[in-house]
Amino acid sequence: MISIGVIGYGYWGPNLVRNFQESHNTKVTVVSDLNSSRLDLVKSRYPTIETTLSHVELIEHPHVDAVAIATPVGTHFDLAMAALQAGKHVFVEKPLAQTAQQARRLIDEADKRGLILMVDHTFIYTGAVRKLKDLVQSGELGEIYYYDSVRVNLGLFQPDVSVIWDLAVHDLAILNYVFHQQPVSVSATGMSHVPGKPANVAYLTVYFDSPMIAHINVNWLAPVKLRRTLIGGNQKMIVYDDLEPSEKIKIYDKGIEVTNRESIYQTLIGYRSDDMYAPKLDTIEALRREAEHFAQCVEKNTKPESSGEAGLYVVSILESASRSLSQRGIPVDVI
Amino acid sequence: MISIGVIGYGYWGPNLVRNFQESHNTKVTVVSDLNSSRLDLVKSRYPTIETTLSHVELIEHPHVDAVAIATPVGTHFDLAMAALQAGKHVFVEKPLAQTAQQARRLIDEADKRGLILMVDHTFIYTGAVRKLKDLVQSGELGEIYYYDSVRVNLGLFQPDVSVIWDLAVHDLAILNYVFHQQPVSVSATGMSHVPGKPANVAYLTVYFDSPMIAHINVNWLAPVKLRRTLIGGNQKMIVYDDLEPSEKIKIYDKGIEVTNRESIYQTLIGYRSDDMYAPKLDTIEALRREAEHFAQCVEKNTKPESSGEAGLYVVSILESASRSLSQRGIPVDVI
Amino acid sequence: MISIGVIGYGYWGPNLVRNFQESHNTKVTVVSDLNSSRLDLVKSRYPTIETTLSHVELIEHPHVDAVAIATPVGTHFDLAMAALQAGKHVFVEKPLAQTAQQARRLIDEADKRGLILMVDHTFIYTGAVRKLKDLVQSGELGEIYYYDSVRVNLGLFQPDVSVIWDLAVHDLAILNYVFHQQPVSVSATGMSHVPGKPANVAYLTVYFDSPMIAHINVNWLAPVKLRRTLIGGNQKMIVYDDLEPSEKIKIYDKGIEVTNRESIYQTLIGYRSDDMYAPKLDTIEALRREAEHFAQCVEKNTKPESSGEAGLYVVSILESASRSLSQRGIPVDVI
Amino acid sequence: MISIGVIGYGYWGPNLVRNFQESHNTKVTVVSDLNSSRLDLVKSRYPTIETTLSHVELIEHPHVDAVAIATPVGTHFDLAMAALQAGKHVFVEKPLAQTAQQARRLIDEADKRGLILMVDHTFIYTGAVRKLKDLVQSGELGEIYYYDSVRVNLGLFQPDVSVIWDLAVHDLAILNYVFHQQPVSVSATGMSHVPGKPANVAYLTVYFDSPMIAHINVNWLAPVKLRRTLIGGNQKMIVYDDLEPSEKIKIYDKGIEVTNRESIYQTLIGYRSDDMYAPKLDTIEALRREAEHFAQCVEKNTKPESSGEAGLYVVSILESASRSLSQRGIPVDVI
Repeated sequence: MISIGVIGYGYWGPNLVRNFQESHNTKVTVVSDLNSSRLDLVKSRYPTIETTLSHVELIEHPHVDAVAIATPVGTHFDLAMAALQAGKHVFVEKPLAQTAQQARRLIDEADKRGLILMVDHTFIYTGAVRKLKDLVQSGELGEIYYYDSVRVNLGLFQPDVSVIWDLAVHDLAILNYVFHQQPVSVSATGMSHVPGKPANVAYLTVYFDSPMIAHINVNWLAPVKLRRTLIGGNQKMIVYDDLEPSEKIKIYDKGIEVTNRESIYQTLIGYRSDDMYAPKLDTIEALRREAEHFAQCVEKNTKPESSGEAGLYVVSILESASRSLSQRGIPVDVI
Repeated sequence: MISIGVIGYGYWGPNLVRNFQESHNTKVTVVSDLNSSRLDLVKSRYPTIETTLSHVELIEHPHVDAVAIATPVGTHFDLAMAALQAGKHVFVEKPLAQTAQQARRLIDEADKRGLILMVDHTFIYTGAVRKLKDLVQSGELGEIYYYDSVRVNLGLFQPDVSVIWDLAVHDLAILNYVFHQQPVSVSATGMSHVPGKPANVAYLTVYFDSPMIAHINVNWLAPVKLRRTLIGGNQKMIVYDDLEPSEKIKIYDKGIEVTNRESIYQTLIGYRSDDMYAPKLDTIEALRREAEHFAQCVEKNTKPESSGEAGLYVVSILESASRSLSQRGIPVDVI
Repeated sequence: MISIGVIGYGYWGPNLVRNFQESHNTKVTVVSDLNSSRLDLVKSRYPTIETTLSHVELIEHPHVDAVAIATPVGTHFDLAMAALQAGKHVFVEKPLAQTAQQARRLIDEADKRGLILMVDHTFIYTGAVRKLKDLVQSGELGEIYYYDSVRVNLGLFQPDVSVIWDLAVHDLAILNYVFHQQPVSVSATGMSHVPGKPANVAYLTVYFDSPMIAHINVNWLAPVKLRRTLIGGNQKMIVYDDLEPSEKIKIYDKGIEVTNRESIYQTLIGYRSDDMYAPKLDTIEALRREAEHFAQCVEKNTKPESSGEAGLYVVSILESASRSLSQRGIPVDVI
Repeated sequence: MISIGVIGYGYWGPNLVRNFQESHNTKVTVVSDLNSSRLDLVKSRYPTIETTLSHVELIEHPHVDAVAIATPVGTHFDLAMAALQAGKHVFVEKPLAQTAQQARRLIDEADKRGLILMVDHTFIYTGAVRKLKDLVQSGELGEIYYYDSVRVNLGLFQPDVSVIWDLAVHDLAILNYVFHQQPVSVSATGMSHVPGKPANVAYLTVYFDSPMIAHINVNWLAPVKLRRTLIGGNQKMIVYDDLEPSEKIKIYDKGIEVTNRESIYQTLIGYRSDDMYAPKLDTIEALRREAEHFAQCVEKNTKPESSGEAGLYVVSILESASRSLSQRGIPVDVI
């Protein structure tokens, strides 16, 4: 049984507390928040959990084995580093940190101390994304041509980060988990429509060291909510719509075949189209699976699926994308 | 009654012939094509229309008032210029030409001779796009924030041009018609998955001299057909789905309101959401309206809605986009 | 503050307990269930609520003002009658009782004692159905022609009642609330596919003393979940799709116009079609609104919107429908 | 090469003429209509086809091998009988006749003379319905539980017949073709909302000599067009949506399993759910396939898939349904 201290009880913290509390191999010992009314809420829901206004007290709490951090991204590095230096395992809200350098320092610190560092890439723990990985890694799609995602809604504007750091982070975590391909460069464009605030509309293209191209369309100002990803392979193609209640993943046996005959009215390309199918997906709650995975990694000292390195992958691309966006699409290398 | 000669009876030519033939103020006199079996098809369908293998003969035909060109884009400039120099009005398939310079020369030649030069931007003659223009120009949407279009399918690969010149051209024509805003720079990314061929997947961002940003996602290798555009304004927002059989345009009375109060758990942004409505659209066939408009412009010597200048606007952006795409998104000015 | 005792903590009981507990003018004092493990669940979630295996004890509990009954329909009458006779207000799960006679006896008992009798017709407390009532009662639809509902899914088979008593009850409650029309006769058809069990597929037509006709299609064995109602009026028509996340109600300005000209190729009927709109709906949780409404009725001694009489209306039609179904559609009067 | 005479060039006749003209084993010799302006249309489109105001002349035309009848249903019997008696094969628009007795007399006449009698049940020649038959007849769905169809739109009111004879006829033809089950009784309900006209809204239930039940919902006054059929079997279930551009048929590996364990909170029923798939369908135009099939039946003297007997099956149910509808659902035997 791993004892968890949770820092931050704002938008996402309650989900972490509930899942760490209800998982069979974790329990929540203490919750901290800077706002005492949020702590009152904790007490009314969970009379047995301690609360404190001080994250320092939480981190140093003798009955805390691991610290879960659900605070604005600007505070992730300092809190996570403090927790690691206090000898605690760390579970951090996405994105892991504000810069690739910060992410690397956290990875190094955790490695040096033999502690688990895990970033909350919730989507990779869903039945849908795990099925995507199976399909891609089994070769069923053939060679991958593109990953094209639209993730827009009338969204909660974040005060301190652009829409990239809020929404594109999900797609980058999925890209890392499903494809294992090395990004080479990023071009990002976008616009802010609230003076003095970061971009609320943005478009990212990621080039890889392969024929695959990834594109991510994120927007906090859309009239409808869309969560739809197309994945094209040279054998099969996928539509993944996360808002579908049941058939979230549809696999199309469609594609092109390049042939040699050519004429003015025929191209080189032939088309094929066969059955479509929608595989059954497991319906385990992603955050529950993630909470249990974290506990197992701590118990067995194994690397999480959403490790610090996965967090670094995501932050590296986000950092390059932000630089590109500020220069209207200029390609920026991902190091 | 305007007599039309149509050059090219491949994919699109038959639509032009049918519409120019059935419109009350035009008729088709002669059709040319390099392929005699296509001409046989013309004869069987329209016994009264002359046919010829020679576009020169067609252009010089004494009973041809205007020449409609439905051939691959690489031939547009030469054919259109020859027709203008022969004193004929010209109707050219989109895109108008391969370069902005070519487009400008056609405009100049037509102006010098007092001839009508019109480019076939079919979409701007649909009931849906005309309604979009009304909504935008009336101010009902407020200040425009973005135009975001997805136009993908398992498409006919074009042998000589990239997917941008085939599909993005529609959105650029709509942008010109609906918004009248001056483009400043373009960033385009994309990939070819058929060796030696132009890009079959591409993403364009167009920056304007305003807060508006336009993004266009085009793909010939998608498992499903999508034709969906989001338009965001600070008062209302639109979803325009051209594949919907009836409600193609939905207008959402949604948006954000920037306020001054701020706290750690509240942003500066408030949200509003009210009724949605789908206006009735006229269902006149776009190409019929366009054919009649061309005839009227010829008869009254007025500038077409899809004039040579509109064609130049589109080609200028396409040209910059192609340069940007070849350099993985580097921003290129639109002159 | 009204003290509620809740009998039954199976499928629906937990929703009642949560809402009566969290509403500002009610609290739950005691819960009874025949299964002690369900009571353990109550205790772990709500340490302050008493539990008992005996509904008799609950009904006679001195601190219980009102009894909420969430048990199989076969027990509704006895439990509700006992509670009324003990001087308690009563809130009963739908349907109110097994027969119209039982429903009438409950109404009489409540009236005689000046107690509130309310049936849990949840749907009429949703924002969508309240909007339907506004639209119909305002005359915006014109004269009502039909109500046509499909309510199917791969559903929880009920052991003791047919799909009519489980699903059609929702539509009958909506019909009573929205239209206030008197049913005249019912024809019902259906089939059981599990030997010895009541019908799992059924179709009801209700005739009224007006041109309106109502049809209800219910099915526990459908491959997909559908909740879609068409309402036709001579001025406007509605599609109400309860599974739509946002635009649940769409109002079409469509209809026919009867004219006098007639020929072999033209009928007497003209068609009109204008804008569609989707009104904003309030998003208050139906059960919360219902719980507060019950408390207000008790406090002010007023008749609930889903009164005993509303329950009688529904049960009368269900009873006639069951008789019709067993005779393959023979029309049965509704008295 | 079979020479066809087509009687009636109103709504459907032009489709027959086009398909019989373009099929490789039929040609149209003569077309008759009571309206000379319709005949002018024929001449302008097909200069080689003869026209006449007299169906008698057409039937007796020496170069007519077969007569296709596309006139109002009230005239089908007389025209078809006259054609058969003149020794011509007959292709009749659906429904075959107004009464079962008429249908039987046509069948007898054709049999006696060794002529082909075919009814135009277009849907059974679509790729979708042929796939449905394969799926049902192969046993993939298991035992069939129900066929449940919704076929509604803002439709062309027919002056002389109710919506049943216009729309339900399609479903009855599909039922006959796909399932081969003997109907036992029908209950139909409905309403007319135009004084003096037949019902424009109707609901049919057909009982068979098996556990299968069929239900058909037809409506000329619906705000949206729906063409959606659910088919439930004890192994698999189907959603057939004819308006889907591509995946018209979806097959769900879902169902229930009846078990013996029972408790107050568990029913006897277990649920299973596995992958869904959408088979590729052939896209041959139904009417083209039908025209060629008619020619083959004539050439080889074989019984058509939509034979006179299929027409009788449909008309028998329609006739019983009309009787039931006029008595508000009373079950009527199908003989």
